[in-house]
Amino acid sequence: MNPLYRDMKVSVFERMSLAAAQHGAVNLGQGFPDFGWPEEILDAAARAVKEGSNQYAPSRGSPALREAVAAHYDRHFGQQLDPDHVCVTSGATEALGAMILSVVEPGDEVIILTPAYDSYAPMIRRAGATPREVALQPPHWRIHRDAVEAAVTPRTRAILFNNPHNPTGRLFGADELQVIANLAVEHDLTVLSDEVWEHVLLHGEKFTPLASLPGMAERTLKAGSAGKIFSLTGWKVGWIVASPDNAALAARAHQFLTFSTAPNLQSAVAFGLGCDEWIAPMRERFSRALERMSEGLKQVGFEVLEPASTYFLCVDLRASGLDVDDETFAKATVEQAGVATVPVSAFAEQDPSRHLVRLCFAKRDETIDAGVEAMARAR
Amino acid sequence: MNPLYRDMKVSVFERMSLAAAQHGAVNLGQGFPDFGWPEEILDAAARAVKEGSNQYAPSRGSPALREAVAAHYDRHFGQQLDPDHVCVTSGATEALGAMILSVVEPGDEVIILTPAYDSYAPMIRRAGATPREVALQPPHWRIHRDAVEAAVTPRTRAILFNNPHNPTGRLFGADELQVIANLAVEHDLTVLSDEVWEHVLLHGEKFTPLASLPGMAERTLKAGSAGKIFSLTGWKVGWIVASPDNAALAARAHQFLTFSTAPNLQSAVAFGLGCDEWIAPMRERFSRALERMSEGLKQVGFEVLEPASTYFLCVDLRASGLDVDDETFAKATVEQAGVATVPVSAFAEQDPSRHLVRLCFAKRDETIDAGVEAMARAR
Ligand SMILES: CSCCC(=O)C(=O)O
Ligand SMILES: CSCCC(=O)C(=O)O
Repeated sequence: MNPLYRDMKVSVFERMSLAAAQHGAVNLGQGFPDFGWPEEILDAAARAVKEGSNQYAPSRGSPALREAVAAHYDRHFGQQLDPDHVCVTSGATEALGAMILSVVEPGDEVIILTPAYDSYAPMIRRAGATPREVALQPPHWRIHRDAVEAAVTPRTRAILFNNPHNPTGRLFGADELQVIANLAVEHDLTVLSDEVWEHVLLHGEKFTPLASLPGMAERTLKAGSAGKIFSLTGWKVGWIVASPDNAALAARAHQFLTFSTAPNLQSAVAFGLGCDEWIAPMRERFSRALERMSEGLKQVGFEVLEPASTYFLCVDLRASGLDVDDETFAKATVEQAGVATVPVSAFAEQDPSRHLVRLCFAKRDETIDAGVEAMARAR
Repeated sequence: MNPLYRDMKVSVFERMSLAAAQHGAVNLGQGFPDFGWPEEILDAAARAVKEGSNQYAPSRGSPALREAVAAHYDRHFGQQLDPDHVCVTSGATEALGAMILSVVEPGDEVIILTPAYDSYAPMIRRAGATPREVALQPPHWRIHRDAVEAAVTPRTRAILFNNPHNPTGRLFGADELQVIANLAVEHDLTVLSDEVWEHVLLHGEKFTPLASLPGMAERTLKAGSAGKIFSLTGWKVGWIVASPDNAALAARAHQFLTFSTAPNLQSAVAFGLGCDEWIAPMRERFSRALERMSEGLKQVGFEVLEPASTYFLCVDLRASGLDVDDETFAKATVEQAGVATVPVSAFAEQDPSRHLVRLCFAKRDETIDAGVEAMARAR
């Protein structure tokens, strides 16, 4: 058996969700909302199951969804996309997988900014390449050109970029995006841009797709996610957006990973993307939920790092006066206090920060209050 | 960009379906039924969309579906499985991908028997290994021990086996299964066993899972497919069945390919697998459809290779008195005669048979009749 997998752990999200179920804990670990998805989109899916096709969709996605994705980004970000820029995938994890497998060659290096989502490094390795970590530093997690450029070597093929950023909740500034774009152009790198949180913006923030920076449309492959936009994380409908050439290449990797995605879920997502009325209420829900959880945690003595995007906040254990590492805290907390969190050290292999845990606040008031109460017990 | 993908073609199934749509041809190319799926399973899915969870399922699959898969095989084949043997995937293509990525290491060789499904060789290559083709010979497509053993080298890690066999429709005999099992045990090989057609048996045939042969449970990873069992190919719900250790390893590859599969489709499939009343009628439908297409083709002068399983038959162009290669015939036929087929030479890279085209007969009478009429025009 391939030793990469022999030595690989189960994803931290899965691990914490299993622990939450086992101990009957409030699950603030794995990121998923427990309220707020649009019933109309569920109705559309249920109707499509009964009335639409249940046979193979085209491998690159249904024409309606590819059109809807392109039109959606044109409307929101003034991009000029058409269906040739789009390849529908079975979730953003598959989009990232197909992007990595199609772009990277054995012997390449890929830069990732840590903390980083836990599928990046294993997929880069399985593609035969080496992940090069560049550690962003808490509490501000800023991108510094020198630090990223120091990781560039003649073998660097790509930067795996993530904005808005999980787990920190950072929305990188225009200057930081420009750092990534400049490095990509100067060193002829491809950027694999995980932008799944693009619409989960808190308190009126604005998002800029990396591909909209000058020179970047041709060298960026973006991963997007219907699950994040519509709070339907289980559907696993995502997409790759890239230049027609790059999208076609990634589609060749995709065709042998899953081939295609359920047509009924695709048609419901195409319906959802067709109008924008779901997005503002989602942002308001999550902004309110953030306030409630943040206030609650502060009242019981925790120091919170405030996010600008995603539905995650980080608690700074050290600044909260706790002398415990994040893994120990997370384990004790799910087993004894009754709340699952995610230790941020799981998002890096080299010298991770060990004083932060991530909490998902995309939850109903009761869930948040129960989670905060349990966190209070964990002190 | 990775040259593997630069030089890779779009899957032959996708290519023929696009050509069929473009030319308004009857689509007998890509394998999918145009009738006969169980409405009750659609109802269960529609209900689950509205009433069940739409958030992440557990990465290895919902407990209900893992339990249903294990119980299903216990009932049908007398295996003794439990949920630890099962990892649910987003279709059998993903199951094969996760199996290949988790078992194979760079530098390995993997034996495939051609003609072979078109995802095998690219995924083996992307895993860093080399596919070794062993060509089965028409019209009987028998497995000969000497031919397979001649392909074994010190670097051989696995045999990618497919039974029942697409595109030939062969159900290999007990002696042929034993050849594979003996070689695997003697040379310490893993068998990746694509058994997605296990229930699509024609005219009363019986299927034996490779893992049920002595010594094979520990060294076989099987791919199964709800899409094939229930004639719902678009759903992309599949699974890996293997020893608990091998299933856990493959699940680590799976978690970074798609992470998980839509919970509503999973729960409908669990319901479907829970009783066996769908299977016999499906076999009868397809056995009747085979007869109709086979009779029709013979009447207009084609020589047909009769399948024992799958919903494909092959037409022997040469034996039908046509002096044309399969690609040329398939192209002309979809563009001019109005029916899409699949050239069997697309299923091998080395010295493929070039005198066979594959037709899907999982179709309503009208579709079959229209397809046969168009085939008559193609002579
Ligand atoms: C695929 S499970 C992880 C979901 C997620 O985005 C997160 O929790 O960070
Ligand atoms: C994933 S498209 C191919 C479907 C199929 O099994 C076939 O046509 O052989």
